[in-house]
Formats: sequence, structure tokens, C-alpha cells
Amino acid sequence: MGVDAQAENTPPRATRSHGRVSISASHQIRSLMDEPVQLARAWKAKIVTLFPDAFPGVLGLSLTGKARDQGLWGLDTIDLRRFGVGKHRNVDDTPAGGGAGMVLRPDVVGAALKEAARGVDPKADWPVVYMSPRGKRFDQAMARRFAAADGMTILCGRFEGVDERVLEHFGIKEVSMGDFVLTGGELPAQAMIDATVRLLPGVLGNAESAVEESHSNGLLEHPQYTRPAEWEGRAIPDVLMSGHHGHIETWRREMSEKITAERRPDMWEAHLANTPRKAPKRKKADRKD
Amino acid sequence: MGVDAQAENTPPRATRSHGRVSISASHQIRSLMDEPVQLARAWKAKIVTLFPDAFPGVLGLSLTGKARDQGLWGLDTIDLRRFGVGKHRNVDDTPAGGGAGMVLRPDVVGAALKEAARGVDPKADWPVVYMSPRGKRFDQAMARRFAAADGMTILCGRFEGVDERVLEHFGIKEVSMGDFVLTGGELPAQAMIDATVRLLPGVLGNAESAVEESHSNGLLEHPQYTRPAEWEGRAIPDVLMSGHHGHIETWRREMSEKITAERRPDMWEAHLANTPRKAPKRKKADRKD
Repeated sequence: MGVDAQAENTPPRATRSHGRVSISASHQIRSLMDEPVQLARAWKAKIVTLFPDAFPGVLGLSLTGKARDQGLWGLDTIDLRRFGVGKHRNVDDTPAGGGAGMVLRPDVVGAALKEAARGVDPKADWPVVYMSPRGKRFDQAMARRFAAADGMTILCGRFEGVDERVLEHFGIKEVSMGDFVLTGGELPAQAMIDATVRLLPGVLGNAESAVEESHSNGLLEHPQYTRPAEWEGRAIPDVLMSGHHGHIETWRREMSEKITAERRPDMWEAHLANTPRKAPKRKKADRKD
Repeated sequence: MGVDAQAENTPPRATRSHGRVSISASHQIRSLMDEPVQLARAWKAKIVTLFPDAFPGVLGLSLTGKARDQGLWGLDTIDLRRFGVGKHRNVDDTPAGGGAGMVLRPDVVGAALKEAARGVDPKADWPVVYMSPRGKRFDQAMARRFAAADGMTILCGRFEGVDERVLEHFGIKEVSMGDFVLTGGELPAQAMIDATVRLLPGVLGNAESAVEESHSNGLLEHPQYTRPAEWEGRAIPDVLMSGHHGHIETWRREMSEKITAERRPDMWEAHLANTPRKAPKRKKADRKD
């Protein structure tokens, strides 16, 4: 699939776009006419879907919604139904060779993807992905890869899937949210956009950016506590109330290691392989699941 | 976390609820007054969130929306803000011991979870989960487990997380969508509900139910094709046009095995371990990614 391999080699957006003059004159003029100037180069998601009303959905609220209002990213939907064939604008048909379900037609999806490509500079870094349980698992490295691009096009499937020839013809990467079956690609597309948009420059405040770092160290997060100091007979651990920053740091690291080792042996082994050190002290557990 | 272990031992909903009389009289009366009779026992998701407007979102459309209109499942949101403290109804505070971000207060979340528990029979099978990257990875087995329950409560986090004491006090299971960071738990909650609701009796038509089976065999799906027979110079593979059901079946199984072995060695090894057989023939690949 190659998405990850690219992610390793892609410098961050700001550096890369610095020495680049890639927007063609005609596109630039159209952009300047269509939208505020500051949007012309903003990261954009183009969504090919049978349910354009599903967008922006949750993405229109909170942090991602505020960032969109500020022009830090943009969203276009392309309604697959517009490209349907015949009087009923059919978008799907029965699977060749028989079987259950319906398959999205290659001519219909192809026409919608061509529409999505309009206005995208051919030299732009613009992944086209299809949400599918057969795809490479979406993860934080892929989110960083997508955030470093100029934008992306996301094809949301419904029914039994999409004609394989479309995936081949457009060189589409299949991306999966996990090993489960959904009624459509719209929700995983929104989750993917959320994870990507929050990595764009300016979207997170400084405090939140710092938090991001703590997720990047390959360990699960330590437990968090806040006021009140006692609740339902449960107190905040003494060390966190001690004011001793060294002890707090040590406790948090040890809890992170313990939780990762217990819950995600795969992640823990990868962590050990990357940072050779002795195994964490296995103190008597503070909590039992 | 124990979610999976339970899943293995839980008989399907229809069987289990057959011999059960678990709804208390007072709850039954309230239910009969509040909602149509057929809803009284329908699977229900209760969502504790700072963004009740985010629901039903995509879940209100298409298959899941139709099933909701038919009373096959229901959705309640509990607005966390209602339980905030002080004049500004604060729901969060700074982390004990210092650090970036804000943590959801245990008293606020606790009060919202108690509200969510109202009307739920204590004997009901009703998981309470928290969407968190520290959790057990959501998968199809977990979706089946949740679909077999009477309903579930989902706590959607925001900010830097929730006070650990709430998770302990209510015995909350942490569930993760995958190894990536989102701005909140609303989108993964919706994805989880979508995957679960489509498994409820009556939600999928017969044709779609059959499709579900093909996802349950531990292999990725074979490629699909539909009309037109030729598109952009690409033809549907001959075997699918042959009308020979045995050959089609064999081709599809071989493609499933090939794709699974190539893309998901972990899944392929698990499949081989479960169904001992010889390795798939590695024919010259029909396509290159």
C-alpha cells in the first residue's frame, strides 16, 4: 500500500510547501474567485458519497468546526447519485458472477472521482483513498502522512463494495478503520478527517499540541485525575498531590508502561525494541480491571 | 477487559431473551407511557456527551436511520454540560500533578452516568464503555457481544480524558477504535453503534445478512465487479462471466486467500491456525498495488 513508507519520508507540510510553486495560474484564478484568499491553499477533504448530508456532521462542531470556520481546512462533498445512470440514477448493480448485495458501478464512481479531481493540481500531493475493511489499518502515522499532503479525496462505499477496476484505474489506496463491518464509509471517513485535521498547523492550541506529543511515544496514557480531591470515597493518588515533579514524572511513566504492557503486549514489545531498557517494575497493581 | 470472553459465552439475543422476564413493573409502565410499545424492549444506546447535537448524525440516515424509525433500536443522549459545576457549568479541570490539557471531573461524569442508568433494569445486560485509545480494540466480535446485550451506555471523552476514579467506580470498559488520536469520542461511538445496530434482528435484509456471513470467515473479501462488462479498457475477469458456479466459487476463495495473505499476515496466520490446509496457490498476481 505504501502509505506508511511515504509517511516516513515526507517532511512536514510547512517545510515542504515553502519552496514549491505548484498551483497553476488558471486554478489560482478560479480559487481566488470562488473562495476567500486564505482558503486557496488550505488542506481540503473531498468526499465522494451517497450521503452528502452526513457532512460535516460531528466535524462541524468543536475544534474541527472552529478550524473550518477559520479557513484552516475545507470540505467538499461530491454526491455519487448525480452520476447515476438511467432514469433512476442507479449507482449500483448486481455482482458479476452472482452473490448477495450490490456493487457500486465503475462508470458512476469513476465519473464522480473525475469530478473530485477537478481543480486539484496534478502535481499536488493528494492521496485518494477508499474506506474498506480490506485496507491498511488507519493509524497515527497515516494521519500525519495525510496532514502533510495538500488534501485528499475519500471514496465512501455502501452496499457490497465498489467495482475493483475503479480502485486499479485511479490507483486508490484502501484504508480500514478496523476489523469490523459498517453500513458505509462515511463514519470512518469522518474519523480519519478528524484525526488528520487536528494535526494541521494552527488547529490545536499550544496546550493541546503538547498533549499530542505524549501520544507519540508509543505508550498508552497514564491515568488522569482532577478535582475534587476525594470523590465517592476515592482519593487522588498521594504522589500527584505531593508537588514533587520528579516523583510525579516517574509515577506517570511507570503507570504508562504498566498499562501498555498489560493491555497491549504488541505495543509494549515494539516500545522495548525501540528503546532498550529494563522491564518496568511490576508493583502491586493499584487497580484491577 | 473481559469483553471478548463474555462474547464467546453469550447466546444470541433472540434465544437469551426468550426465557427472561427482567423489566421491572415501574419501568415497564413508564416505558409504555413514554414510547411506542414495540420500543419497550428495543436495543438502546445511551450516549453521555458534550455534543448531543452530534447525534444521531450519520446514524439517522440510510439503514440505521430506517431501523431507528421502525423502532428496532433507540438512542438517548445525556448532555454532560447539564451536570457541570458552578455558574459556568464547568465539566473539566486541570490534571492533578500538573501537565497539559484538561480532565473531565469525576463528580460531573458520575452524575451523568447515574442519569444514564435511570430506567435501566439492574439485571439487564448493559455494558458501559468509554471510548479511549487505551482501550481494547473494537472488532466484529465485540459488535456481536454488544448486539446481544439489552443496550449500552457510551461515555464520549473530550480534552485530555476522564478522571480514572469514574472508570473504576462504574466498572467501565475502555474501548478503542484504533491507534490514532481524535478530538472526541463521538465519532468512534457512532461507528461502534453502526457496527452493532446492523447486527440486530431485522435491521439487515436477507441479502445483506448473507453478506455478513462472508465477513465472518476470517478472510478479507475477494474483488467485486459489476456492469458495464468493459470500462476504461478493463474487462470483468472471464471466470466471473463463465456462469460456472464452481469455478467462480474457487476463484473467489483463492482471491480472498491471496489478498488476506498479502495484506494481513496476522489474519492469514489466524485463519491457517483455525482451518489447517495447504497454503494458497500463489499465481502470478492479477494486479499490483
